[in-house]
Amino acid sequence: MFRKLLSFDEAKQILRQNLSPKPIGVERVSLSEAHDRVLAQDVVAHIDIPPFIRSIVDGYAVKAADTFGASEEKPVCIRFCGQVAVGESPNVVVEKGLAAEIATGAPLPEGADGVVMVEYTTRQGDNVFIRRPVSSGENIMEAGSDIRKGEKVLRKSQILSSREIGVLAAIGLTEVTVYKRPKVAILSTGAEVVEPGKSLLPGKIYDINAHALSAAVLESGGEPINLGIIPDKRDRLTRALEKALDSADAVITSGGVSVGPKDLTPQIVNTLGKPGVIISGIAVKPGKPTTIAVVDGKPVFSLPGHPTSSLFMFMVFVRPILLGFAGRNEETMPKLKAVSSTKMFPARGRRTFVMVNLTIDKIGTLLATPVPTGLSGAITTLAKADGFVEISEKQQFVDAGIEVDVYLFGKLRKTEAK
Amino acid sequence: MFRKLLSFDEAKQILRQNLSPKPIGVERVSLSEAHDRVLAQDVVAHIDIPPFIRSIVDGYAVKAADTFGASEEKPVCIRFCGQVAVGESPNVVVEKGLAAEIATGAPLPEGADGVVMVEYTTRQGDNVFIRRPVSSGENIMEAGSDIRKGEKVLRKSQILSSREIGVLAAIGLTEVTVYKRPKVAILSTGAEVVEPGKSLLPGKIYDINAHALSAAVLESGGEPINLGIIPDKRDRLTRALEKALDSADAVITSGGVSVGPKDLTPQIVNTLGKPGVIISGIAVKPGKPTTIAVVDGKPVFSLPGHPTSSLFMFMVFVRPILLGFAGRNEETMPKLKAVSSTKMFPARGRRTFVMVNLTIDKIGTLLATPVPTGLSGAITTLAKADGFVEISEKQQFVDAGIEVDVYLFGKLRKTEAK
Repeated sequence: MFRKLLSFDEAKQILRQNLSPKPIGVERVSLSEAHDRVLAQDVVAHIDIPPFIRSIVDGYAVKAADTFGASEEKPVCIRFCGQVAVGESPNVVVEKGLAAEIATGAPLPEGADGVVMVEYTTRQGDNVFIRRPVSSGENIMEAGSDIRKGEKVLRKSQILSSREIGVLAAIGLTEVTVYKRPKVAILSTGAEVVEPGKSLLPGKIYDINAHALSAAVLESGGEPINLGIIPDKRDRLTRALEKALDSADAVITSGGVSVGPKDLTPQIVNTLGKPGVIISGIAVKPGKPTTIAVVDGKPVFSLPGHPTSSLFMFMVFVRPILLGFAGRNEETMPKLKAVSSTKMFPARGRRTFVMVNLTIDKIGTLLATPVPTGLSGAITTLAKADGFVEISEKQQFVDAGIEVDVYLFGKLRKTEAK
Repeated sequence: MFRKLLSFDEAKQILRQNLSPKPIGVERVSLSEAHDRVLAQDVVAHIDIPPFIRSIVDGYAVKAADTFGASEEKPVCIRFCGQVAVGESPNVVVEKGLAAEIATGAPLPEGADGVVMVEYTTRQGDNVFIRRPVSSGENIMEAGSDIRKGEKVLRKSQILSSREIGVLAAIGLTEVTVYKRPKVAILSTGAEVVEPGKSLLPGKIYDINAHALSAAVLESGGEPINLGIIPDKRDRLTRALEKALDSADAVITSGGVSVGPKDLTPQIVNTLGKPGVIISGIAVKPGKPTTIAVVDGKPVFSLPGHPTSSLFMFMVFVRPILLGFAGRNEETMPKLKAVSSTKMFPARGRRTFVMVNLTIDKIGTLLATPVPTGLSGAITTLAKADGFVEISEKQQFVDAGIEVDVYLFGKLRKTEAK
């Protein structure tokens, strides 16, 4: 009963040794589905952007040499030879002494090497008076000056935001190769849990974990498959776990991992493939009764029934694996410095994560105050917290009034002076 | 032609005066669809959580008074009267002198007021020897101690992450009232643009804006409706704008707003409803030829054709409105301090936003360097930038080597020492 538990660091290391969180595969998606997906290959432009020499002003396309010496006092007069509209192939050639009217964005006609802005011209019939000279290349954008054919425009592993999707559209792509989203099967165990919406018979509580964990999977770039509440019966649980492993890239169970007669999940998982259970209990708080198995390359995380423990263990152990499966770089949690408002103690011998709220006191100090947990079954502890303070198993305590790192769960909510 | 443009601040103010970015409506969604949605009303618990007094350990439910004086040397002997399992209604009553075996999470049976941990007990037949006393209330969690019936558990305007979805499940909700996502119709104009995937005839370029703006709408909590490329013909554009206003809460057009014969959109918009065009050109760079109209309460943003200008104007003018429509609080863009690596000049008389890259130099200074823009049609400028520096229209320049605020577009990419 009092066997030595793996430390937090040992558990992390064993997980890493048994499971490499590499991308699980790639797929093609259309541009309209590509938002927030992760590029699985470099994207190389197969065309120049712009594809042709463009005018960047409204004016007259000319041979620059024809405009030399032009001034307000002594305009140069050259001959109108036609128009070039936006989106059309020019049907004029600008020979020496000629000028073609051109709109912003239109392709420069053959023979021209610059554009005089309309402001510096006057047209009288077929005569165009030029009052300022242009140099060769002036007011035009060279073909390929934005993106050169053959240029690597986006790199593998890039998350696609509006800006990158603009680049993909620019080179005319309609589809792109991205990493697959890992499918994660979620099942709940425990005789006391019932699905939200059903009536709550005496002794029952609603299944929180399936819903919180499904959302957490979405937040980690995965696709949750909610398999519902599975009775703690060997055959039912075996079938559910087999189905989960067949249909998903990772499995999360919650509940049913306290030491006791109902401790079925790890036993069953060990029969389903190798290496089976690799971590059975971790010296952490919250989350001690966490079991992790690997079954033929797929992880099975058996998280505690307590919602705060379960969701917290998800963040610490499951999320980094799912990010890896999704081709997303492992992240560092955002953190900031605050001052502990009270003395905080770790659970004896366990890496302890204290859920805290951040507030600003009257003199502007950012204070970290533990969320009153009441007792360990509380769901609201995590929901009420802004973040957590990590206390090493080797530390005696964190004193009041000292600077601590607070790891943030999300955007900081508005804090108020007390 | 050289009419005075509205300043950036004037344009912002006129937009605010003509359009209040209030939530456009509410809808009910299931818990599995609730992730990242915004609560449209406070959520009040209609039950206690836990709904009953729970044991938080495995052990024996007793009357605490019966255990007084118990010790290792002198255990108290009380009589086994039955079992209480998790998820079941207790069918025993713990009278004086009795003890009921109880599992973690099971409801405390009537008569009991504390639980002795199994570690401090020994069972021999129907005798239970208790080696440590418990006080009344020890090792139990009171009904309602986590969430009290009638308690406000979540507030209106809360964005629903995994943590809040856990709270909703805890109180048994299957649906929740959230703000509707604003529908945003997007249409492109301009004789030169063609849909990605089609062949690129001479003088044509791919339509970048529709795709980049669709993704930007998603990033702002909206639902894009891509109406495609509309020819610059009065009847076609009128029909498209009517359809857009019918089917969406906001409309974005891009291209076709240069001053010239093709400047149709504002003319048409003025015929469709009141007040019509409220902003016609803004003294900003990039984004000067931006036109904004309000048609019977719905905004119509006519953004420039240049992709960088268009997407940047979206961020500055459109996104705050969409966030408001979606019930999301207006955000402050993340920013950080950096040192300008070079002198930066504003465009004369215009609020200028200089796209910059951030790099760290050899001595660890974070440097902001303008992205070489080449010329203004570039799509890659924005995609290559980490953020921007804002230069007031009143400023002469930003000197090299001084501290500047850099507003970030997203997560900071890895920067390398040069």
